[in-house]
Amino acid sequence: MRILPKTLKNLVSSFRKLSSVGQKTAERYAFELFEWSTQETEFLAEAVRAVKNKLTRCDACSCIKEAGASCPFCDPVTRNEEILCIVSHIKDPFLIEESRAFKGLYHVLPNLFSPFEEKDIASENIQRLLGRLEKLPVKEVILALDTTLEGDATALYFQNLLRPRGVKVTRLAYGIPIGSNIHYFDSQTLHQALSGRQVLT
Amino acid sequence: MRILPKTLKNLVSSFRKLSSVGQKTAERYAFELFEWSTQETEFLAEAVRAVKNKLTRCDACSCIKEAGASCPFCDPVTRNEEILCIVSHIKDPFLIEESRAFKGLYHVLPNLFSPFEEKDIASENIQRLLGRLEKLPVKEVILALDTTLEGDATALYFQNLLRPRGVKVTRLAYGIPIGSNIHYFDSQTLHQALSGRQVLT
Repeated sequence: MRILPKTLKNLVSSFRKLSSVGQKTAERYAFELFEWSTQETEFLAEAVRAVKNKLTRCDACSCIKEAGASCPFCDPVTRNEEILCIVSHIKDPFLIEESRAFKGLYHVLPNLFSPFEEKDIASENIQRLLGRLEKLPVKEVILALDTTLEGDATALYFQNLLRPRGVKVTRLAYGIPIGSNIHYFDSQTLHQALSGRQVLT
Repeated sequence: MRILPKTLKNLVSSFRKLSSVGQKTAERYAFELFEWSTQETEFLAEAVRAVKNKLTRCDACSCIKEAGASCPFCDPVTRNEEILCIVSHIKDPFLIEESRAFKGLYHVLPNLFSPFEEKDIASENIQRLLGRLEKLPVKEVILALDTTLEGDATALYFQNLLRPRGVKVTRLAYGIPIGSNIHYFDSQTLHQALSGRQVLT
């Protein structure tokens, strides 16, 4: 809508920066906000601001943490320092924690190799990871990367980089997600699920 | 995710207040915002705040307008005061303006009658509408209401209220939306489209 008041237009253009939010959705959000209470909009404005002011990335693992606080993902008392999980997005450590299947360390390496784009993992990130591996008693590195071309290329890179250092390198199991019907999956997923089948007794 | 930092949780809970935004979408938005520049988050925070501070509803028509400025929907110079359109949502006048088919006045009456809820149009809103109709040279009132049970009940109410006052009361044409396939529509819509068919030459 071209004739919106400028104040609403600003809000719409800001919401549109969120991925998969189009013009209509952004307009809907803006009109909804107008009907919120002042208290609710103030809370949102403060929360938006706080994301930059009160959160930061951990210098060691690059996970999100409250600024000024120590990183809960790097705590040597509660975490198992013999196992380190490489993920490609800041959201992933929180998801993996939810699973309660992992108590080791994390390392976020945001840039994956891409066969289509000229995009490399920044060498400073690699150096920081290698520095951590030298200091920490890590015996196993889990590659928790996407099962895409980019994820595969990155996994291969780490495999070659880490194996000569005497570190065990593993990847998440491929297969069928919990709660899904077999007939929805592609042949490659089924192939992996069959190859990786497990004995039940 | 229960273990998110409090700062992110605040943002997630705020985004979840938007209709059709669930937990996963709200978390996605929050993580995306963390990767925005400070400039971008400040712009959004300010835009959210401005929606309450810089916008207001027009005292006459209840449309959204910039606070302190005159209402563009009530301007006696550019608007045709002989025709007034009743809508049920603050977004509707902007949508109708986009159509360029209407240059009259608007009146937003947010609450529709509902056969399922104990909800009535607040009588002060009705009084304000009747006050405007007495002051203005309105000859026709267009009911641009939803084609739902609530919309129909409200339309009937206005029809009975306004007809004795010598005002012509009209409703938007029912039919098939532009750009759609006939076979997607229900029999009631087709019935209306047939009843309201127009001679072509």
